[in-house]
Amino acid sequence: MNTDFPSYTLTISCVDKQGIVAAVANFIAEQKGNIIYSAQHSTDHLQGKFFMRMLFDPSACGVSLDEVQNAFLPIAQQFSMEFSLHPTSKKKRVAIMVSKYDHCLVDLLWRWESKELDIEIPMIISNHEDLRFLAERYGVPYHYFPISKDNKEEMEEKMLSLLEGQVDLIVLARYMRILGQRFIDSYPKKIINIHHSFLPAFIGANPYERAFTRGVKLIGATAHYATLDLDEGPIIFQDVTRVSHEHSVDDLIRKGRDIERQVLAQAVRWHVEDRVFVEGNKTVVFE
Amino acid sequence: MNTDFPSYTLTISCVDKQGIVAAVANFIAEQKGNIIYSAQHSTDHLQGKFFMRMLFDPSACGVSLDEVQNAFLPIAQQFSMEFSLHPTSKKKRVAIMVSKYDHCLVDLLWRWESKELDIEIPMIISNHEDLRFLAERYGVPYHYFPISKDNKEEMEEKMLSLLEGQVDLIVLARYMRILGQRFIDSYPKKIINIHHSFLPAFIGANPYERAFTRGVKLIGATAHYATLDLDEGPIIFQDVTRVSHEHSVDDLIRKGRDIERQVLAQAVRWHVEDRVFVEGNKTVVFE
Amino acid sequence: MNTDFPSYTLTISCVDKQGIVAAVANFIAEQKGNIIYSAQHSTDHLQGKFFMRMLFDPSACGVSLDEVQNAFLPIAQQFSMEFSLHPTSKKKRVAIMVSKYDHCLVDLLWRWESKELDIEIPMIISNHEDLRFLAERYGVPYHYFPISKDNKEEMEEKMLSLLEGQVDLIVLARYMRILGQRFIDSYPKKIINIHHSFLPAFIGANPYERAFTRGVKLIGATAHYATLDLDEGPIIFQDVTRVSHEHSVDDLIRKGRDIERQVLAQAVRWHVEDRVFVEGNKTVVFE
Amino acid sequence: MNTDFPSYTLTISCVDKQGIVAAVANFIAEQKGNIIYSAQHSTDHLQGKFFMRMLFDPSACGVSLDEVQNAFLPIAQQFSMEFSLHPTSKKKRVAIMVSKYDHCLVDLLWRWESKELDIEIPMIISNHEDLRFLAERYGVPYHYFPISKDNKEEMEEKMLSLLEGQVDLIVLARYMRILGQRFIDSYPKKIINIHHSFLPAFIGANPYERAFTRGVKLIGATAHYATLDLDEGPIIFQDVTRVSHEHSVDDLIRKGRDIERQVLAQAVRWHVEDRVFVEGNKTVVFE
Repeated sequence: MNTDFPSYTLTISCVDKQGIVAAVANFIAEQKGNIIYSAQHSTDHLQGKFFMRMLFDPSACGVSLDEVQNAFLPIAQQFSMEFSLHPTSKKKRVAIMVSKYDHCLVDLLWRWESKELDIEIPMIISNHEDLRFLAERYGVPYHYFPISKDNKEEMEEKMLSLLEGQVDLIVLARYMRILGQRFIDSYPKKIINIHHSFLPAFIGANPYERAFTRGVKLIGATAHYATLDLDEGPIIFQDVTRVSHEHSVDDLIRKGRDIERQVLAQAVRWHVEDRVFVEGNKTVVFE
Repeated sequence: MNTDFPSYTLTISCVDKQGIVAAVANFIAEQKGNIIYSAQHSTDHLQGKFFMRMLFDPSACGVSLDEVQNAFLPIAQQFSMEFSLHPTSKKKRVAIMVSKYDHCLVDLLWRWESKELDIEIPMIISNHEDLRFLAERYGVPYHYFPISKDNKEEMEEKMLSLLEGQVDLIVLARYMRILGQRFIDSYPKKIINIHHSFLPAFIGANPYERAFTRGVKLIGATAHYATLDLDEGPIIFQDVTRVSHEHSVDDLIRKGRDIERQVLAQAVRWHVEDRVFVEGNKTVVFE
Repeated sequence: MNTDFPSYTLTISCVDKQGIVAAVANFIAEQKGNIIYSAQHSTDHLQGKFFMRMLFDPSACGVSLDEVQNAFLPIAQQFSMEFSLHPTSKKKRVAIMVSKYDHCLVDLLWRWESKELDIEIPMIISNHEDLRFLAERYGVPYHYFPISKDNKEEMEEKMLSLLEGQVDLIVLARYMRILGQRFIDSYPKKIINIHHSFLPAFIGANPYERAFTRGVKLIGATAHYATLDLDEGPIIFQDVTRVSHEHSVDDLIRKGRDIERQVLAQAVRWHVEDRVFVEGNKTVVFE
Repeated sequence: MNTDFPSYTLTISCVDKQGIVAAVANFIAEQKGNIIYSAQHSTDHLQGKFFMRMLFDPSACGVSLDEVQNAFLPIAQQFSMEFSLHPTSKKKRVAIMVSKYDHCLVDLLWRWESKELDIEIPMIISNHEDLRFLAERYGVPYHYFPISKDNKEEMEEKMLSLLEGQVDLIVLARYMRILGQRFIDSYPKKIINIHHSFLPAFIGANPYERAFTRGVKLIGATAHYATLDLDEGPIIFQDVTRVSHEHSVDDLIRKGRDIERQVLAQAVRWHVEDRVFVEGNKTVVFE
């Protein structure tokens, strides 16, 4: 995608009905918007769910974003749409949560520093001090919450206070604590987790050890939205790599690191580019 | 894609301009068509090329396909569109051309027999008799043209006469003769060839031998539209597989066969489902 | 591998100890054998399991296979080896068991007919008549056993009688009946099954439907040795392919067919080339 | 591979002859070494080239490495072997050469810092100052050589002086200058370059632009030993990723970065683990 010119991103979810595309396209035409990109999906054109991601060039609109937005409201109401309209270049604010493993964090920080990921990283949150040096190296605030069995609820409340109004997305970059209901519920479809197996294989703890024991010939990683059901949230992206009898558990862990960081970075990229829609426990991804 | 209900396929190519999507979507809405699927691409929204593939449910249209088509003509003229509108279920007629290698032919015949490829195969054309037994096994007419250096032009004229009006697509399933200009020009964007390398690597003859000599660690195959420039036509699909120092040239050829038939079958599927558009020497593929 | 000259295949499994490789290599040298290929693996050099696959050129041996074999017996006894020594070119006899799906069967038959798989296929066994036409097309005897709930044990006894002494390997090419203990026990490490998921995901019935419901972004297939624990046997090979929100269950099944037949063919090839060793519930595969 | 115990690595290249494996295995047995891992390859057992990589546990040897080495010399002479024998844990010293692109460098530094790559990095050499901050961040000496058309020979002499005796491997991590003959000749089979295409496709400059123009559906990267013939050296590893009509040249470059760093890191790992052997213009890699 060439993004050298001004562009607005419009995303829509609603129940599918005749006339949606016409209504949206007419609206864009009336606003003198120029469609750059459009993707849509309907789970079933007869009363299924409809999803759309559209980028348009507003150069000729002659009015402000707010005015365009207001003009769209009647259409949104007519079709009971959830929608979002914002400059495509608007950076999302992404908090990263980590424990002790550094590979996903290093990868996200490098992609951010090199502008490959066009985001802001206002903070890193951890239940350990181990990776503070990385946060300092990249100049990102690092917040340490010493979570124990007894204080988890209290600590997560403090995290929520800290995050309040500051972030658009939370990335669990191998954060090894299970989040409580209040936390999960506070950021629906806005927490991305990386699981170190090709789900639904090896749900739960120690997937690499179990993969080794089972003798699988592939290992993988899965990026998904966090939900209360552990490892059961909507899958955004998965990938695998080959392993053989030559590989020890340590080899699996090492090879897995490369898959984990690639898969997580891809999912974060798609999310912040508004390419991912959630329908029930599944995702629609306009790659 | 669920295709349990009636559906029309509409494909469009034209210079990109403001208002195209609105015009098409309004047309569908006026005809009381119900959009099932829509994909579009613009190479550049400012005077680039625009491509669209749309499937819609015509149950509520209340008029014939011809009438819908006539109603669309003014829009097509307004935007100087190339377009096609036909029942999605209409089977394309595919001629297969082969020489001595059987793997691509067997694969296409099996996919056709098992209804995985929803096509008609009115004929198989060959410059050898070797694979007649396969045609007979599947009950497909087999036409043998004994081509030599001296009679190539004449033989290709005979082939063209035989094909005339009988086919929508020609598949070169390892047909080992270079087609002449008249033949190529008679079926623009309608001849799919499979080349046994990941083009542009190893253009020309004996790619597996050359891959072995070069010591590459991947071999592949490329399905592309045939053009006069050998191996230079628009690429539809490519895939690769790993090889190592353990593999002889024979191993490469054997492993290549699996890639070749997968890649060719995928390209044929996409073509007959109207998913492939040609822009200059490149393709747009709505997977 | 170049196999243009005479060659013997020697495979060995035993508890790892100092001196095994020296003993075997010395033996080959004494016999004036010429090592063409050798691969070995030890799960742990301190009392783990040792596996070796060796091909050697016996041209200079000057004695018969039987004599070479007898000469090896003392070494085999010294290290308590399981071993096999036979001409590399000796074809294994493979029975194929099917139900109604044809794709794996067609693929194996084509690879056999085109000599890509260097095997004999003495018989096809089925609990349905549906695929008899394929057996007849390729001239392979087809045996129909009308299995019901009540006669399964009896039918499997009849199958075992038919198979007795006739086959070296049984391939379950989408055979949809669970085999009984007597059958499984009669062919330990000699029954290969293809499961239509990347195990251990979607163990059991209807993996494609469940993959669709779960919203995975990859589907796959697994070839493994059949054991009494359904879908839990030693895995030989696995592969996956990408799917998206565009794909229906039917699309998954279609795309899965290509993976299934590739994975099954690869596993069968490796098995008949004596490349697969079983250690507990895992395999060692010398690719 | 479990590497929790002491281990020596022995690598051998020579013309293939009867008796090599026996001679080596007997030697190890006499030394009371315990073979942990052994891989071998012969390009042709009749006068081809033979390659072997062996790891053995020397705990029971009872003599020093030097003594083992001396004891091996007669065998090495007998078969005219090139060989190397050293503690497996001995770290190779790797110099990294870069220009302005940071992704490969960052990746190698992270893998080194996190001990995933068990190497030393005594220096980073560059023809630009741009990446000095990265060297400083990781505490690695950074040497800047302002190369111009006129002083290239002189600068490369200075580099050679600096490198003299300090490194076992040089990694060109997107170093954008062509190295002169003296430099190349000083480190035969010891300079690894990453090329940003799946060679031999797009040899030379600007492969991503040319891939975009050609409309390929795959892009890739190739790690190879640098030779005087640009992009023609022995290939160690290659990988590819899919691209589509949606991707701009910038997207290709971005997606390519992930492949480049993965491919380069894999090649460096294999090299420093003594898994790569060069035969003519090809490699043998014991993965």
